[in-house]
Amino acid sequence: MAPSALTPPDEDFPRWYQDVVAKAEMADNGPVRGTMVIRPYGYAIWERMQAEMDWRIKRAGAKNAYFPIFIPESYFAREAEHVEGFSPELAVVTHAGGEDLAEPIVVRPTSETVVGEFMAKWVQSYRDLPLALNQWANVVRWELRPRLFLRSSEFLWQEGHTAHASYDDAHAYALTIHHDVYDEFLREVLAAPTFLGIKPPSERFAGAVNSLTGEGMMRDGKALQMVTTHELGQNFARVFDIVFQTEAGGSDLCFTTSWGASTRLVGGLVMMHGDENGLVVPPRLAPIQAVVLAVRDDAVLLEAAGRLVEELERAGVRAELDRGRASFGRRVTDWEIKGVPVRVEVGPRDLEAGQATLVRRDTGTKEAVALAAVATRVCALLEEVQGALYERARRFRDERTVEVGSVDEAAEAAQDGFARLGWSLVDGEGETRLREAAITVRCLQRADGSVPESADEADLVCIVAKSY
Amino acid sequence: MAPSALTPPDEDFPRWYQDVVAKAEMADNGPVRGTMVIRPYGYAIWERMQAEMDWRIKRAGAKNAYFPIFIPESYFAREAEHVEGFSPELAVVTHAGGEDLAEPIVVRPTSETVVGEFMAKWVQSYRDLPLALNQWANVVRWELRPRLFLRSSEFLWQEGHTAHASYDDAHAYALTIHHDVYDEFLREVLAAPTFLGIKPPSERFAGAVNSLTGEGMMRDGKALQMVTTHELGQNFARVFDIVFQTEAGGSDLCFTTSWGASTRLVGGLVMMHGDENGLVVPPRLAPIQAVVLAVRDDAVLLEAAGRLVEELERAGVRAELDRGRASFGRRVTDWEIKGVPVRVEVGPRDLEAGQATLVRRDTGTKEAVALAAVATRVCALLEEVQGALYERARRFRDERTVEVGSVDEAAEAAQDGFARLGWSLVDGEGETRLREAAITVRCLQRADGSVPESADEADLVCIVAKSY
Repeated sequence: MAPSALTPPDEDFPRWYQDVVAKAEMADNGPVRGTMVIRPYGYAIWERMQAEMDWRIKRAGAKNAYFPIFIPESYFAREAEHVEGFSPELAVVTHAGGEDLAEPIVVRPTSETVVGEFMAKWVQSYRDLPLALNQWANVVRWELRPRLFLRSSEFLWQEGHTAHASYDDAHAYALTIHHDVYDEFLREVLAAPTFLGIKPPSERFAGAVNSLTGEGMMRDGKALQMVTTHELGQNFARVFDIVFQTEAGGSDLCFTTSWGASTRLVGGLVMMHGDENGLVVPPRLAPIQAVVLAVRDDAVLLEAAGRLVEELERAGVRAELDRGRASFGRRVTDWEIKGVPVRVEVGPRDLEAGQATLVRRDTGTKEAVALAAVATRVCALLEEVQGALYERARRFRDERTVEVGSVDEAAEAAQDGFARLGWSLVDGEGETRLREAAITVRCLQRADGSVPESADEADLVCIVAKSY
Repeated sequence: MAPSALTPPDEDFPRWYQDVVAKAEMADNGPVRGTMVIRPYGYAIWERMQAEMDWRIKRAGAKNAYFPIFIPESYFAREAEHVEGFSPELAVVTHAGGEDLAEPIVVRPTSETVVGEFMAKWVQSYRDLPLALNQWANVVRWELRPRLFLRSSEFLWQEGHTAHASYDDAHAYALTIHHDVYDEFLREVLAAPTFLGIKPPSERFAGAVNSLTGEGMMRDGKALQMVTTHELGQNFARVFDIVFQTEAGGSDLCFTTSWGASTRLVGGLVMMHGDENGLVVPPRLAPIQAVVLAVRDDAVLLEAAGRLVEELERAGVRAELDRGRASFGRRVTDWEIKGVPVRVEVGPRDLEAGQATLVRRDTGTKEAVALAAVATRVCALLEEVQGALYERARRFRDERTVEVGSVDEAAEAAQDGFARLGWSLVDGEGETRLREAAITVRCLQRADGSVPESADEADLVCIVAKSY
């Protein structure tokens, strides 16, 4: 296999995924099982995701803060479902500063407990509510079958935590995060269509009363939970004593929410938009939107290429000059693997004709453009590509999502896509049968595709699939 | 003591520090000893520090990446000085995923070892050099006498790691980081004068051949190491086998560097610029540069205040409308404690006269300014305050830095300031005697104040002080 050759995705999708992550220089396995080293190109993609989510989170009124990575083990025991859900995945520090510790310390798998402790301290009155916090942090959940980005023992994420005076306010805020932060980011930046809905009770977050989710379809027909927002009711407020004085002078427990999006999204990006030539990054997300290449190592060509980079940057394009020393063909292949949306090629015949060649990563389409018009055309092309990627992913997903009338049909259809059926057809027993075929209920929706308030609503439909 | 009253700094400086950190709502102690919860205002300051350092780091050619928080214990043992230096501070995970681990895992106190392992993998040829990486991350060093921001068991930082083909290239890069990233940030943004120099051999980073430092003077005359850059020679390359093929076709070990700046800088900010009324944040750093207050809860005043906020924001000022419900005096005190550089007050008489009152946090100086001129005047005022804070800190430091001729005089002078004397006067024994008086050699400089290449240069001077 040539250094840049990828396993064909149709032949072996998991191996294709590994190849892309390695050859696009996105990440490596860390020395401790299940951990990962995120390389500069992978991290640049994550930084773009952070930037695009961070301003939307701030627009939603949440403020960034930072809570400790170490949590006393006893905090976890307070919420019964929570400790049961997370215990098998915990990493525990028993020794520090040269001594054995009196109480073991847990490396945070998520921060509801420690945030709850401090919310109880900071919230006194209805005037302090809502309290909306977010943190960008690393968390640890021990993984037995790790995969880079998708399931790693340590991952990076943002976790939002809010406290509210009423169920209605908490519910409305959860929907704001779900729609205006997550779904807007997924649609507008990641070009990722998802099915929005709520998790069935069996798949809820440990300690939540309701979990909202956005489920994307990968190119192998499996589902990936891209983002998640939890309504925690008064469960955490009860055990951490998050009490406030009401406007009427009484006292009440807060309603809390938590919500997160992680480096798993980088894996989702690979599997939703990638193809046989590697990664395909949507332009609004891409850390490099356009790369300019001289077809050979020639001073005149390189100078022209350098000028184009400057013009692109002036036009607001994140552009980069290819400085590689390899053959032109090899350099093209490398940029294709990295999924840069637009390639600008400058050859001697191009220069003679006063033009450059633009190549779209998603379609391979080439067009000759006058040098003076390159920046303008690239800007327009980036928007075209952004829209095309969303449409392609949506079409792919819709073609592989079938309406079925029974659990058996669902099990059949979910072998390589999503199946949609009445939730009432899948009672507890149906979920068990599906799970035996490695299929789960990904989300519940209303018939019109909107997000229900609870799993108890009548006439819900569910989407079932294999998943990551 | 009224809720907002601070311990006077002259009476009890450490307690004043604690009061400011608590009452400006910057941080709280975490539940695990030595950890901290960084609250939104403290975190907003750190985010501004991150932004201002991050672009300078990228300008210096380093790329962001992310290495795992968990490092096999055996990695630490490879570099003898390194393991000896860090062992007493390590937190160790012995149990994960429900099982005892075969090899204990260390929670990173710094990442030279794991980065070294991967540099060895990524670097093949001189063409791969220099390799310049940086990460924003949390690290853990168990602290027996923790203090918020200054010495916490977990802290946030950036750590840069680079590999070079020659000593000269590594040395030049270390100086670039020292001067163009750190010192420029400290001077231009943090308004922090520092003494730049190198650590004496006894105070070097564990495993380094040379450690560059920037030492700031706090308001109690003690030193704080603000930033540090280490030349690691070939020490880590040797034990992690970071070998490259030279241009001539041979092979050689890389020269590596590492450099860091942490949330400790937030503590330095408090102690360098703060006063009896609380924090004082330099305008270029401040997350809120100007706050606009209506002197009482009145619709007309609030509307005028809101318009001023909009105009300030349009002029590029990070402005905020005070929405507090407390008395005017109390709100003023709270914004003073938070150290917002300029306060814009709008009262009924102001409005009648078509003006607002601007108040400088650093001097308390008030001036009346026509409403239409507020945004322009605030912009100018912010730059004036920025320069004034730097000058005030520089004058304070220079007045408390005395030239002395002996170790005894140095021990005397360093009780409440810095002492400067010939390095040749302080041999090993002098350092021991100073240390008995809780004084250390903070840095070595050339006589003209410039940074020496090594401690072996002739005619060096040293700066000695008590320190954090």
